[in-house]
Amino acid sequence: MRAAVFHGPFDITADNVPDPQIKAPHEVIVKVLAGAVCGSDLWTYRGESSAALESRIGHEFVGEIVAVGTGVEKLKVGDVAIAPFRYSDGECPACKSGWPSSCAHGGFWGWDSDGGQGEYVRVPYAQATLVKLDEAPDAAALPDLLTLADVMSTGMHAATSARVAPGDTAVVVGDGAVGLCAVIAAKLRGAGRIIVFGGKHPDRQALARQFGADEVHSARGPEATNTLKGSTGGIGADVVLECVGSAASFETALTLARPGGRLAYVGLPHGVVIDVAKLFRTNVSVSGGLCPARRYIEPLLPEVLGGGIHPGRVFTTRLPLADIAEAYRQMDKRETIKVLVTP
Amino acid sequence: MRAAVFHGPFDITADNVPDPQIKAPHEVIVKVLAGAVCGSDLWTYRGESSAALESRIGHEFVGEIVAVGTGVEKLKVGDVAIAPFRYSDGECPACKSGWPSSCAHGGFWGWDSDGGQGEYVRVPYAQATLVKLDEAPDAAALPDLLTLADVMSTGMHAATSARVAPGDTAVVVGDGAVGLCAVIAAKLRGAGRIIVFGGKHPDRQALARQFGADEVHSARGPEATNTLKGSTGGIGADVVLECVGSAASFETALTLARPGGRLAYVGLPHGVVIDVAKLFRTNVSVSGGLCPARRYIEPLLPEVLGGGIHPGRVFTTRLPLADIAEAYRQMDKRETIKVLVTP
Repeated sequence: MRAAVFHGPFDITADNVPDPQIKAPHEVIVKVLAGAVCGSDLWTYRGESSAALESRIGHEFVGEIVAVGTGVEKLKVGDVAIAPFRYSDGECPACKSGWPSSCAHGGFWGWDSDGGQGEYVRVPYAQATLVKLDEAPDAAALPDLLTLADVMSTGMHAATSARVAPGDTAVVVGDGAVGLCAVIAAKLRGAGRIIVFGGKHPDRQALARQFGADEVHSARGPEATNTLKGSTGGIGADVVLECVGSAASFETALTLARPGGRLAYVGLPHGVVIDVAKLFRTNVSVSGGLCPARRYIEPLLPEVLGGGIHPGRVFTTRLPLADIAEAYRQMDKRETIKVLVTP
Repeated sequence: MRAAVFHGPFDITADNVPDPQIKAPHEVIVKVLAGAVCGSDLWTYRGESSAALESRIGHEFVGEIVAVGTGVEKLKVGDVAIAPFRYSDGECPACKSGWPSSCAHGGFWGWDSDGGQGEYVRVPYAQATLVKLDEAPDAAALPDLLTLADVMSTGMHAATSARVAPGDTAVVVGDGAVGLCAVIAAKLRGAGRIIVFGGKHPDRQALARQFGADEVHSARGPEATNTLKGSTGGIGADVVLECVGSAASFETALTLARPGGRLAYVGLPHGVVIDVAKLFRTNVSVSGGLCPARRYIEPLLPEVLGGGIHPGRVFTTRLPLADIAEAYRQMDKRETIKVLVTP
């Protein structure tokens, strides 16, 4: 089959790789119907992650099951399913306590199994990992469904971790796909007012408003703090959803919360260090982390299938797997919000 | 009047100081019935705080009102009241949002007004600050009531910030007065199991058990982590209440929480820095901060007056104000859990 391979910084191409084979009874093989490039893939693309050379990549996919292991009873060939961005066994103490993100036997696509940017993927612990759809989706529904693998679930994890409550003033820091999905999530949880701090791209600003943002600003640092204070009578936001993960973004995000405000982050933090004494006086809390996406897919499915939300609009480009190098180039240059990859 | 004065490290004595005078219409003068020495006073005592030489000290007191400002209508001479450890105006945006700890016009006893270790205290914003008792308390009730000024409210803030829920496995790190009160608080919120990590003092261990602890350990660092893992089937605690505030204690506390676990801290953090990347994989959240004690006094009052809880047992020594130097010596040497000071 063909799949994306990381050869080194700024060098990811679609290559011929071995077809996946079922290795254990709990596994299935999925034929990818739609994959995606994630903002977090750019850490690898830019040579800033610990990914090994020649490793596979891509952790978002919706696919059709084409082979099942002997221990698999609840899934059959022909089923279409959404894969969360990490697989998990569903049985360890972490999984049972609701945190498949900490599964004792879990792993990441591309590192611990095939990547989602490819034709086929071997799925360990398939019954616990995959969320089967009741019926095969229309092609038009694929983008929305695909976001549940990561970005929409991750946006929901930000809003859930920060406990966005009806009427809250919610700030979203970041206008990437996760930040934009966090706007949808804050709206779903009843935020009274949503204020986005992002860049200056008109397409992202427009999508933020379409998704429910009341204000969209491109201010950063102290200017962002002042803007937000001006918008909230000087006190700050009830909740802040940090969807960037850089030290500078985090530092600003902390200044945006009111006393007792709740900050949640969902992007892998890069060099983010908090002096707890700075939180002490304000009682701002910090929650979030690696999204347990498996937990969010089922509750979000009716919203997506019913047309209540359209997170798939973050896919502003669609490219075939053969053009994966171009997909990364566009993502890296921020020429697109997110690329949907068709095998 | 006489009041405790900080002359320099390890030198706090009861001296003659000017009698307080009402300076603004919203103030009252309180005659202290009972004050206390707090673990956090030891930062000053040991020369590790920024307290100015000759400053006053003590932030916990119950007292009788002896003079009222012209703008005070809800309090009268003769009323007995509990003072939270910080005064607040009750009207600023922070106060109105439930965070008097961040009051725009608030201040600390000893620094911004008289200290609680003294005969009289001038109380700014008295109506918003003080919690009046319906009737003058018995002398026997004073210790329990006095803990609401700080340590019991602060323990409750830890449990509340960590959202201790019925059935939770709760760990308390620290066996000082606040840690012990956090045991009471976790129990009040329905924790199913309470595990304390403290020192080796038999009196503190006994009190922890009396207050509701199921297990009391003196292990620290990695040994504490292993002990806790052994007690929780390898997964860790649902909630961790960090009641010490040192870097070492905080680092251990973070390892005690299960994936998705909730850590709350309530002591002023000294040199505590968190690498957020370490929280990312486990989704452990960090909340808490300076306790908005004013908010907790009223709900805890019936528990104390009804005899449901006896946090006053943390006062293992009672000394007159004249012996304040001895009170600090005993606290510093950990010869007592907490000292009640009678003027």
